[in-house]
Amino acid sequence: MESLYVIKIGGNIVDNPALLTECLQAFASIQGQAILVHGGGKLATSMAQAMGIEQTMIEGRRVTDAETLKIVTMVYAGHINKNIVAQLQSIGVKAIGMTGADGNLIQAHKRVHASIDYGFVGDVDEVNKDLIQLLLSNNMRLIVAPITHDGHGQLLNTNADTIAQSIAVAMAFQYKVHLIYGFEKEGVLLDLNKADSVIAKIDQPTYTKLKEDKVIFEGMIPKIDNAFLALKGGVASVIIGKAEKVQALINGTSGTTIKI
Amino acid sequence: MESLYVIKIGGNIVDNPALLTECLQAFASIQGQAILVHGGGKLATSMAQAMGIEQTMIEGRRVTDAETLKIVTMVYAGHINKNIVAQLQSIGVKAIGMTGADGNLIQAHKRVHASIDYGFVGDVDEVNKDLIQLLLSNNMRLIVAPITHDGHGQLLNTNADTIAQSIAVAMAFQYKVHLIYGFEKEGVLLDLNKADSVIAKIDQPTYTKLKEDKVIFEGMIPKIDNAFLALKGGVASVIIGKAEKVQALINGTSGTTIKI
Repeated sequence: MESLYVIKIGGNIVDNPALLTECLQAFASIQGQAILVHGGGKLATSMAQAMGIEQTMIEGRRVTDAETLKIVTMVYAGHINKNIVAQLQSIGVKAIGMTGADGNLIQAHKRVHASIDYGFVGDVDEVNKDLIQLLLSNNMRLIVAPITHDGHGQLLNTNADTIAQSIAVAMAFQYKVHLIYGFEKEGVLLDLNKADSVIAKIDQPTYTKLKEDKVIFEGMIPKIDNAFLALKGGVASVIIGKAEKVQALINGTSGTTIKI
Repeated sequence: MESLYVIKIGGNIVDNPALLTECLQAFASIQGQAILVHGGGKLATSMAQAMGIEQTMIEGRRVTDAETLKIVTMVYAGHINKNIVAQLQSIGVKAIGMTGADGNLIQAHKRVHASIDYGFVGDVDEVNKDLIQLLLSNNMRLIVAPITHDGHGQLLNTNADTIAQSIAVAMAFQYKVHLIYGFEKEGVLLDLNKADSVIAKIDQPTYTKLKEDKVIFEGMIPKIDNAFLALKGGVASVIIGKAEKVQALINGTSGTTIKI
């Protein structure tokens, strides 16, 4: 089975031009098929502020009202996505930027929650495997912005970790998929203050224990939940670590490997 | 030879949600292959104002400094392009939104001008025929935002009429291409104050005369220049008229037909 690398890079990388360039060079150096999913970064927040649009966060997640959706669509699908694509093209990657709406790549539904209205936030329903297969088999690399659609004309703000996981699972029927969550740290740390305290491997019992001990908390929880979902969905491996070290992450010499 | 319709819709349509929906429905009703190129509209200008970025226009063309490029990329490639794509998807069109950077669809160079520095404005060098052919042959319709790239990582603001013309000419080797410039009027008018004074046909001598008589002036001149360039490049027909009447424009019962 051919390998497919699904690489997600977070907002902190997107916000740092030098680091982003380093990550894109690492992405370009990957042999074989690859897809990049990028997060949002702080630009959307600062633009909303500049335009006087108030931002509400609930449990670390942005509440996406109509004006905020407009801004995240502009920033994620416009500015960030197209600059990444142009930069990758300049170093020989046949990059094609997309949201979930393009070619119906990712269909989602507006999040339903008992007590909280997250606004125009999407939970993924389906990934268009045929489109991904068509583009990959023509030597293109998809660069995916964290915006989806509901099939009824509505764009939806969607978590980039979840998008990466959904794409990874969808393509596992045909590829040996390696899902890599790239962020600004060396991996999942035992002690947030010690950069060298990377936990090499996390399996389900370890994860339960680390959560109980509050070693893993906040934003890392949905990320690792996504990692386990990916593995249960047939993804070959999930690694969390520094995005610019993608080759070492692939080789297993850096980062945290998540195992069932 | 199979027909391909390249439809360009202008900024005034993009700015009017009801009219835009009507145009997209007309676009959806086209039988056969079709590509949509959309202009920018006033949102970029109003956003620049909201963010305190001064706009300079020279001869009706925006001077694109770095901040303005960021805004037009966000508005054209983000907000406008993705909302059009989502809306078309909801009415059964397999729409895929793109800039010239995506899949290296349109490579351009920064405009060189003896006396005026237009900033990050691109003049088209090459259209990626293979990519267009791949997507069309898989029943997709490209929705193109007026942003290109230079192949060295730089995005460029590019005139949508010119993009439509360049795509039309590039595909003329394989399709019978019909280029339609859709805008808010019934066609090229003999008298701007009379909506029914549409000039049915304009050939090269008529055009020269109409320019001399100042019947055709300002923004209509580059549009008709593009039309003649398209015809000289092998495009089968060029029609200017109301975008929501695309079927009548195709049938020749509405609009102005440009002929060599």
